[in-house]
Amino acid sequence: MKKIPLIMDCDPGLDDAIALLLAIASPEELDILGISTVVGNVTVSQNQENARRICELTNQPDLKVFQGCARTFFERISPADSEYTADIHGETGLGGCKLPTPTMPLQSQDGVSFIIETLLNASEKITLAPSGPLTNVACALIMEPRIKDKIEKIVVMGGVIGLGNITPTAEYNFYCDPQAAYVVFTSGVPIVMIGLDATRQTQTSQEWLRTLAEIGTPVAQAVIDMLSFYHRPNAFLEPGVLGGVLHDPNIIAYLLKPELYSGRNAYVEIDVSSTIMAGRSTVDWHGKLGRKPNAYIINKVDVDGFFDLLTSRLNRYPMTTEKVHTCNHC
Amino acid sequence: MKKIPLIMDCDPGLDDAIALLLAIASPEELDILGISTVVGNVTVSQNQENARRICELTNQPDLKVFQGCARTFFERISPADSEYTADIHGETGLGGCKLPTPTMPLQSQDGVSFIIETLLNASEKITLAPSGPLTNVACALIMEPRIKDKIEKIVVMGGVIGLGNITPTAEYNFYCDPQAAYVVFTSGVPIVMIGLDATRQTQTSQEWLRTLAEIGTPVAQAVIDMLSFYHRPNAFLEPGVLGGVLHDPNIIAYLLKPELYSGRNAYVEIDVSSTIMAGRSTVDWHGKLGRKPNAYIINKVDVDGFFDLLTSRLNRYPMTTEKVHTCNHC
Amino acid sequence: MKKIPLIMDCDPGLDDAIALLLAIASPEELDILGISTVVGNVTVSQNQENARRICELTNQPDLKVFQGCARTFFERISPADSEYTADIHGETGLGGCKLPTPTMPLQSQDGVSFIIETLLNASEKITLAPSGPLTNVACALIMEPRIKDKIEKIVVMGGVIGLGNITPTAEYNFYCDPQAAYVVFTSGVPIVMIGLDATRQTQTSQEWLRTLAEIGTPVAQAVIDMLSFYHRPNAFLEPGVLGGVLHDPNIIAYLLKPELYSGRNAYVEIDVSSTIMAGRSTVDWHGKLGRKPNAYIINKVDVDGFFDLLTSRLNRYPMTTEKVHTCNHC
Amino acid sequence: MKKIPLIMDCDPGLDDAIALLLAIASPEELDILGISTVVGNVTVSQNQENARRICELTNQPDLKVFQGCARTFFERISPADSEYTADIHGETGLGGCKLPTPTMPLQSQDGVSFIIETLLNASEKITLAPSGPLTNVACALIMEPRIKDKIEKIVVMGGVIGLGNITPTAEYNFYCDPQAAYVVFTSGVPIVMIGLDATRQTQTSQEWLRTLAEIGTPVAQAVIDMLSFYHRPNAFLEPGVLGGVLHDPNIIAYLLKPELYSGRNAYVEIDVSSTIMAGRSTVDWHGKLGRKPNAYIINKVDVDGFFDLLTSRLNRYPMTTEKVHTCNHC
Repeated sequence: MKKIPLIMDCDPGLDDAIALLLAIASPEELDILGISTVVGNVTVSQNQENARRICELTNQPDLKVFQGCARTFFERISPADSEYTADIHGETGLGGCKLPTPTMPLQSQDGVSFIIETLLNASEKITLAPSGPLTNVACALIMEPRIKDKIEKIVVMGGVIGLGNITPTAEYNFYCDPQAAYVVFTSGVPIVMIGLDATRQTQTSQEWLRTLAEIGTPVAQAVIDMLSFYHRPNAFLEPGVLGGVLHDPNIIAYLLKPELYSGRNAYVEIDVSSTIMAGRSTVDWHGKLGRKPNAYIINKVDVDGFFDLLTSRLNRYPMTTEKVHTCNHC
Repeated sequence: MKKIPLIMDCDPGLDDAIALLLAIASPEELDILGISTVVGNVTVSQNQENARRICELTNQPDLKVFQGCARTFFERISPADSEYTADIHGETGLGGCKLPTPTMPLQSQDGVSFIIETLLNASEKITLAPSGPLTNVACALIMEPRIKDKIEKIVVMGGVIGLGNITPTAEYNFYCDPQAAYVVFTSGVPIVMIGLDATRQTQTSQEWLRTLAEIGTPVAQAVIDMLSFYHRPNAFLEPGVLGGVLHDPNIIAYLLKPELYSGRNAYVEIDVSSTIMAGRSTVDWHGKLGRKPNAYIINKVDVDGFFDLLTSRLNRYPMTTEKVHTCNHC
Repeated sequence: MKKIPLIMDCDPGLDDAIALLLAIASPEELDILGISTVVGNVTVSQNQENARRICELTNQPDLKVFQGCARTFFERISPADSEYTADIHGETGLGGCKLPTPTMPLQSQDGVSFIIETLLNASEKITLAPSGPLTNVACALIMEPRIKDKIEKIVVMGGVIGLGNITPTAEYNFYCDPQAAYVVFTSGVPIVMIGLDATRQTQTSQEWLRTLAEIGTPVAQAVIDMLSFYHRPNAFLEPGVLGGVLHDPNIIAYLLKPELYSGRNAYVEIDVSSTIMAGRSTVDWHGKLGRKPNAYIINKVDVDGFFDLLTSRLNRYPMTTEKVHTCNHC
Repeated sequence: MKKIPLIMDCDPGLDDAIALLLAIASPEELDILGISTVVGNVTVSQNQENARRICELTNQPDLKVFQGCARTFFERISPADSEYTADIHGETGLGGCKLPTPTMPLQSQDGVSFIIETLLNASEKITLAPSGPLTNVACALIMEPRIKDKIEKIVVMGGVIGLGNITPTAEYNFYCDPQAAYVVFTSGVPIVMIGLDATRQTQTSQEWLRTLAEIGTPVAQAVIDMLSFYHRPNAFLEPGVLGGVLHDPNIIAYLLKPELYSGRNAYVEIDVSSTIMAGRSTVDWHGKLGRKPNAYIINKVDVDGFFDLLTSRLNRYPMTTEKVHTCNHC
């Protein structure tokens, strides 16, 4: 099977971190060209540190991590300041998992220039997998629109058909930067949108956590530490959601096993107003508007298949790493 | 049991007509002070004729029918012109049921003045049950805000939490007059909103139509005639909805048996923009916005209970009426 | 010369009062069919009292005064509560002029029904001259759109091309009820818009006040009393405006002597958003948008001609009235 | 006098070109650190070529020219395609002035990165002088907000208090990229806004063109050639404007002689909606909103002083350049 050349764009963040772990464990399918980070769950400087922590945890210090945009287009939300994100992702963004300060270097190039340069110089089309606000991708599209021809598709975690998780109408990533999401969804690039309608289906269970515990590797333990924080009752955006929802790993699972996902092509419009609609992704599921679809919207996940994939891939990490992490909870 | 003094405000329309039949069949519980009509499914002059047709069908020529607003606030939709409504409700608004031209008079007072005068002069609070665009109610509130103190509550068919039926975001009644819905929802009057989330649950079945056929009265036959049109495949707004959805009778059923319905208090905001959000009722179901609830939102219906109620009340109409209607389908 | 059949719609208010005095003094040209009042500078109950006070001051107790809408469409401004209007128009709305409580009756019909009924029954087209928020006119158009065919034109005081007087973007009357202004400007009825660009030109001077004093009639004195309040420094909305601006009398002066006014046909769009644009009348003066003009926009007034007309008409009032007003300032 | 370290950000364009000529002729006051170009009057690739043409015309091939953003945030206008800009600025953007293809190199770094890097590395604060859409400056602020501390001020040609030149509400530069203008005006950086209210005052006269002709240098002739095109009747956005309006040179003239300009501090809000307000700069000239001013708004220019300055500086260019331009009109 031909590898998918991939740029990951993220703001780790607990579920971003698990998405990274899933991707790094899948070298047969994915060729990770670089990891750009963006303001979101925590500040961009914290994000890039976390991305490097994950790379070192998996003993992959040669992966390239770039720091991207430090703020969103309109700064209507300043996510890093908010108590909200600290409640969800912990002060460092990795919950109860305390990995050591990374020693591998941050790349000197900024994340947006990395995206532009990598795409312009590419001999084949590249897939983008953004799991945070779409600020980096949008800036790249504005500065150098010619990159559009080099993007295979954008598989994005974000948006929702029904009720949002940060406001009644919006999902967190799109809410953080509606303008960026608008730029991406009007770009003409093929988009797979995996929003809350889908990701809410992939909630962790106590049973799955026990499976992880049996694996017993440092990576498995790190995931447990992350999720033990995520499981805290006050951590949930949505009343009634009793497990940890693994939003971001879905975009990687989709790339690895698209057959786990189903949905349909539809027109999506991102609300860029300053009203309570801000960041809403209106999905014309029934085609009422007669507009051309601009995204493939996932609404169903094979949940067992998802967790089987995640477990088997996490199971690939070895029992010891040269750089063992130290965790206060161990 | 004390009777509920009630003003019905409607645009019959098939399901409005059935709502009227349900209300008229419930004199122990409901005291119908008058029926105001409003532009909506068909023109207001057609609507008021239809309302009078229903009154005569039930042998209630003393009910007072008023003609209200002939257009909506912004006329962004001109519902009566549209092929859409003719497809759903038939050219006359009563589908395949062709009742004779009514002989009972239309009241000379306009519908808005009727609402204002009735409320101002009332010695007890009155319930409003609007099943069309909220134009009449909103105009009354603007012209004479003091009526607010005389309204017990407004039980309205309209709005939706999830996907709309006329656009991806909006339900038909609110879409026809977002400004009017805004006026009502910001009025401070107690509101029970029975939107598509609830009404989509009350779909007719072939079995229920057979039950109606067994009743065999002129009224039951009229309902069958109405629904036989409504059941036509091209009549449905929503793909995958296989039965006729009885939206409007729910507001009367709620008044008769509130125990059939459940929901919660929530803040609702009506979108009055000119975007694809126009007429959307954003319901803050999880209280993310921290705003004071302004409506009780129904999201669950006891469907069997609903149809039992409807069947038993329709069963009250006698086998013969003095003014027998003639129906092409009979 | 044929008389112009006229409905005045107003919220007196100082300059509304002077507009009434100018109209009442012009029976050869104007046939005042009725005066409807609307919430605006003061509450509608205060407004209608003031309208009746003016009628009695001019010894015209047979003029018909109606009470119209008590609130605006969206109630985003509640003008009557605001310190703003009390600063400008005084607590009663007539500044320093304290006319006795009127004894002539308020008409029992509401203002909106009066407008509708008068127009529907008219054998010739009628001119509307609104000098307050357009709520009454808009409600009439919504309730009974057929009145459009009976309106000769609407000569409205409101709107502005340049800087507003209540916000940077909006004039007070349109700001009070943007939705109503929208309904009127999209109605297709011929409109003459006399906005701030024009009315700011008609400022009173000390010299003109001396001219009024020389007239010495009760009406002239009442005008002086009104304006002496209006001239108070803290009364001005607009820094640098040193005289009292006679906004509303311009719509009557236009009807009496249109040759005093010049402007052009242009497309006008009323902003109905909740932003700082609310109530703005965007005038496409240079036709950039290529849309069909929907109003004649006045931007120039023959100021000397205006004051000559006003002086000569106020001069028609007699030295004594049967019902002499008592004014604290006299 | 201490030199002002300056980054020019432009889309030449005729008046941009004259702004460049004015700046290059003022080495005692201005230290031009680089010239970034942006999509606007013509495409960004045409713009950067034109900037290099001007540098070579003035015999300054060591000036650094960078190519910036190739599109605006929302692409609601695609200015380069439009007949509009070709009508105003000619096909190449320099009107009737045909300068040879430049031989000096385009810098390999992109314009946005140049702005970021120059500011981050600066030991003293730097002034930005953007004369096109604000896309480059906004992208830089989003990618690296820390640059704010290194910006002395932004002197921008754009916006308007009164009537716009591309729509009834908006000036061309802000209209091209409202989102970018919003980012800049909410950044907290000191801003001097020189909008149409000011720049419309600096119209060229036939007399001034004769003065230029007397100068007789290649640069003076190039300006004449540019303006001879600009003077063409069909070139004017605004009916009644009979001369060529020198918008952009005002931002350089302001830096050289601020005493030629007057205005006031005010709150400005950029409209980012999709309505006819798009790109409007609402200036709260009278402080009605009570918000903190975020820009110094110029509304008056000493026109004679402006042209004296421009003439004397253009007069500095020598009679011959090593690289003489060839112009079809000579």
